[in-house]
Amino acid sequence: MPTPVVLDCDPGHDDAIAILLAAGSPEIDLRAITTVAANQTLGKVTLNAQRICSAAGISVPIAKGCAKPLVRPLHVAEDIHGESGMDGPAFGALSVGVVEHHAIDVMHANMPATLVATGALTNVAMYLQRYGTSAVREIVLMGGSTERGNTTPYAEFNIHVDPEAAAIVFGSGVPVTMVGLNVTHQALVTPEVVARLNALGSLGRICGELMTFFAATYREVFGFEAPPLHDPVAVARVIDPSLVTCVDAFVGIETIGTFTRGATVVDLHGRTREPPNARVAVGLDVERFFEVVIEAVKALS
Amino acid sequence: MPTPVVLDCDPGHDDAIAILLAAGSPEIDLRAITTVAANQTLGKVTLNAQRICSAAGISVPIAKGCAKPLVRPLHVAEDIHGESGMDGPAFGALSVGVVEHHAIDVMHANMPATLVATGALTNVAMYLQRYGTSAVREIVLMGGSTERGNTTPYAEFNIHVDPEAAAIVFGSGVPVTMVGLNVTHQALVTPEVVARLNALGSLGRICGELMTFFAATYREVFGFEAPPLHDPVAVARVIDPSLVTCVDAFVGIETIGTFTRGATVVDLHGRTREPPNARVAVGLDVERFFEVVIEAVKALS
Amino acid sequence: MPTPVVLDCDPGHDDAIAILLAAGSPEIDLRAITTVAANQTLGKVTLNAQRICSAAGISVPIAKGCAKPLVRPLHVAEDIHGESGMDGPAFGALSVGVVEHHAIDVMHANMPATLVATGALTNVAMYLQRYGTSAVREIVLMGGSTERGNTTPYAEFNIHVDPEAAAIVFGSGVPVTMVGLNVTHQALVTPEVVARLNALGSLGRICGELMTFFAATYREVFGFEAPPLHDPVAVARVIDPSLVTCVDAFVGIETIGTFTRGATVVDLHGRTREPPNARVAVGLDVERFFEVVIEAVKALS
Amino acid sequence: MPTPVVLDCDPGHDDAIAILLAAGSPEIDLRAITTVAANQTLGKVTLNAQRICSAAGISVPIAKGCAKPLVRPLHVAEDIHGESGMDGPAFGALSVGVVEHHAIDVMHANMPATLVATGALTNVAMYLQRYGTSAVREIVLMGGSTERGNTTPYAEFNIHVDPEAAAIVFGSGVPVTMVGLNVTHQALVTPEVVARLNALGSLGRICGELMTFFAATYREVFGFEAPPLHDPVAVARVIDPSLVTCVDAFVGIETIGTFTRGATVVDLHGRTREPPNARVAVGLDVERFFEVVIEAVKALS
Repeated sequence: MPTPVVLDCDPGHDDAIAILLAAGSPEIDLRAITTVAANQTLGKVTLNAQRICSAAGISVPIAKGCAKPLVRPLHVAEDIHGESGMDGPAFGALSVGVVEHHAIDVMHANMPATLVATGALTNVAMYLQRYGTSAVREIVLMGGSTERGNTTPYAEFNIHVDPEAAAIVFGSGVPVTMVGLNVTHQALVTPEVVARLNALGSLGRICGELMTFFAATYREVFGFEAPPLHDPVAVARVIDPSLVTCVDAFVGIETIGTFTRGATVVDLHGRTREPPNARVAVGLDVERFFEVVIEAVKALS
Repeated sequence: MPTPVVLDCDPGHDDAIAILLAAGSPEIDLRAITTVAANQTLGKVTLNAQRICSAAGISVPIAKGCAKPLVRPLHVAEDIHGESGMDGPAFGALSVGVVEHHAIDVMHANMPATLVATGALTNVAMYLQRYGTSAVREIVLMGGSTERGNTTPYAEFNIHVDPEAAAIVFGSGVPVTMVGLNVTHQALVTPEVVARLNALGSLGRICGELMTFFAATYREVFGFEAPPLHDPVAVARVIDPSLVTCVDAFVGIETIGTFTRGATVVDLHGRTREPPNARVAVGLDVERFFEVVIEAVKALS
Repeated sequence: MPTPVVLDCDPGHDDAIAILLAAGSPEIDLRAITTVAANQTLGKVTLNAQRICSAAGISVPIAKGCAKPLVRPLHVAEDIHGESGMDGPAFGALSVGVVEHHAIDVMHANMPATLVATGALTNVAMYLQRYGTSAVREIVLMGGSTERGNTTPYAEFNIHVDPEAAAIVFGSGVPVTMVGLNVTHQALVTPEVVARLNALGSLGRICGELMTFFAATYREVFGFEAPPLHDPVAVARVIDPSLVTCVDAFVGIETIGTFTRGATVVDLHGRTREPPNARVAVGLDVERFFEVVIEAVKALS
Repeated sequence: MPTPVVLDCDPGHDDAIAILLAAGSPEIDLRAITTVAANQTLGKVTLNAQRICSAAGISVPIAKGCAKPLVRPLHVAEDIHGESGMDGPAFGALSVGVVEHHAIDVMHANMPATLVATGALTNVAMYLQRYGTSAVREIVLMGGSTERGNTTPYAEFNIHVDPEAAAIVFGSGVPVTMVGLNVTHQALVTPEVVARLNALGSLGRICGELMTFFAATYREVFGFEAPPLHDPVAVARVIDPSLVTCVDAFVGIETIGTFTRGATVVDLHGRTREPPNARVAVGLDVERFFEVVIEAVKALS
């Protein structure tokens, strides 16, 4: 039986592929898409969710969530995702609207389900605080790192945007799986992967165009030779846990550091003596990962 | 025309009197009572709201809110308010129930209104994050201090329980009035006030019993000769602004200090060069304050 | 037998009077004056120590100490003490030099003694870290507050300049007496006190001119009607402990707060359950205090 | 002309080899050895410095420095270095004493020189604060990491012991070279290296025994197959800069984080926009490194 999933995201180039992966994989029953401000403002990322769903013929409910992090002001990633938050392809007319309900209410209406979060954790934290922890089966999130970060030396973007929300989520007692940069930086979209996407028809070409823009900003900002497909790795973990190897560990969310705010401090060697509060991704089967991505796009084409 | 008010509280001895003051004053149109964990657990403070409303014949909707602070674990004030959160009187059968909706949804259903908050600011922060800031007219809160605190040397209980929520509220842009210990410590319930309450009949005697218990814990824990009637001072500010003198000031909420977490850092002399973000109470007309309290209890008796 | 004292200071208007009080009181054997950057730069405050000693015929060794706080950059109090750090009077030619040794070495050469510190605690912390705690009898410092601060809402200037040094001092295990704003704000130099100083001759007139300048900046910056004679209160405590009432309490030095850095968090009511680490001044015999000040200036005149 | 060096250390197994490398290399003129509490208490690490110098016939002055970090209590690394701080070999009678002067005074007496620091930075910070920055040519330190730490997930031991001292050093303006775990974890003492040491005679066998003990604790605590020779890599950088590749970068020292205190936040990709304040080691010529170590021990044998 497919796993019921609510996907909370901020498209975002890699979020767009995550949506396609979730919608196009038979192992997942995608119940709803909820949006949160992070890669771009709430209005923009919600429009982007509508765009990619329209392009792919995906018709699950889309609901808007929080327009800003809990405590801090919003800083978007325009340097990486462009002015629209999903620069690159030209999108056609929208065939999908936005439901009137708030993201957290839509999440709850679809429980019990697995929450896959690929943006800042603001909506997820708000959901847990509003509705409690009992209805959500599991939270699988793209965010953090066991090694270095990207927004700052030790902080990854999604966690850095809303560290207090991350602290709520990791402290909630709900089973949490963290898929961080240490594995997503292995999911590099090589020109060969782009060629395979382009060969899949019009939806594949949109994916190819997304990845071509993403490659350019990752080259410019981070010096990467190919861009990492962060968010879909979290979805892949739900599709087939064997794609993403995990270990149990304590993850401390740094909310007060001068230089380290937003760091996910993963205690891989038990130095803190805190009991594990998360499953942390440490390995990725890169080849099979791209297989499931290609298959999902093909299924939607 | 009376001011529409939603009262968010955690009864609590002084919260109980705040409820009576709001319900019994013609200047206020009390729309709803919402509860939040702080003085005691959510279940207990909600029951206490029902108890005092039942005793006073108040029939506004009561709705439960958050059972814990946003980021931190809950620490209740059992040393001050006792095991029930409102120890002292014997209460009769309940004549008032609890509505099914969550506090933040009930708040929104009653907007536009003034939010009077006399507990931790968890519900208020959740409301602002969920529904935005445009519908709420004003927030008048009991919490903080311009001088020393009570839970720790510089932190007052309500703010100390959930400093992140307080940071959200003071940073929201909504007009905020802070009524802190520097004024509420002037509202001392002397034996003469207790005698006046007791003279008002059964409801007055319940008030008197509440104050007798409260006097005992304040004497034991803080060495006070008479207990301060904190929360009703915030309600009094709404009833008649001239009862509580205020100045505009910047209030920084300390969320990270080792010894100062939960402090309300009120910049009375413009040392921080930050623009004011709150009205801060600095004076109380003590005599007239107790007049309005007595009048409200009398009106409900 | 007079108490041997090393006076570590940053003159400073009130430091200048503290020097006169220490040198002119028979109860104190002033062994050395050491200087530290705080009210003004190290060069300026050292020159000011030479100036007041030259004017008063004080011939104890003067030694320079640290030019900056331990971890943080130096912020001087030019708004209060003027460009020279001791604006107001015209001073004559210097008759006193500066010894070649560093303040902390001069401190140690004069131990066992009481260290009276009326500036930032940088030198004192360096002394304790370099020479250990066994030779110093007691540290009596002007700094901090049990109530509000002056540099920021909860931080007093001397502690705010170098909170890490203060943390070292309060954590050292040496007997520490803290004389803070809560008492020094009672030592107001009224026009009557100025008149009494002026009547004492040329040194008294220098004191009067110092206080006239100090009065002007205190009026402008803080709105005070008369300026507080902070630093001499610490010296007065050594001269006659009965002048300054103290209680034992735990004092936490806040080094990390966003809005509270440099606060002295005095646990007057045992809320933190930490054992006392200081004697904290809570009362001042104002009349007798000004008597000892006037007597000391008279003795030097 | 050999580089004049003062070596500040806390022997410590790898410190011992660092002493031998500095004393046995013709490129270095070792002027003095100063000790600081970190791997073990000050008394123990000073005795260990005497032991290794006695065993190797090194006769430079040895001076004791600080017995504790600036602000925080001392936590030693007994789990790694044993009860003596240098468990393993049996040492013979001491032939070397300790000078009476304090480490920071001995440092200054030997300036201008390069300061090589392989322990906590307490002494170095005290030196800079006491004597200023002008006499020291350069500071080359073993500490920190560009990746993960060892004491906590993001903090290396030497920096974690005294983060405030590290902040002083990195903020001093003196040229600082940081040699962190990211390179020292490449300097693994394999059985083959141990065999080469053992073949060098009695001093070599002492080195071999040190490394055998060190290998055992590194295997047990960190699961390493061979122990990393941390401290000598800093000395090697002075001997021949081409052995250790460096880049210029900003290094923020985290002093306040809940989970990240003591982290060296190295901004390799210019994300913080802070100008570089250090040279940071990023590469090691492992083979040539062990050559210079073996050669130095041979030269002393």
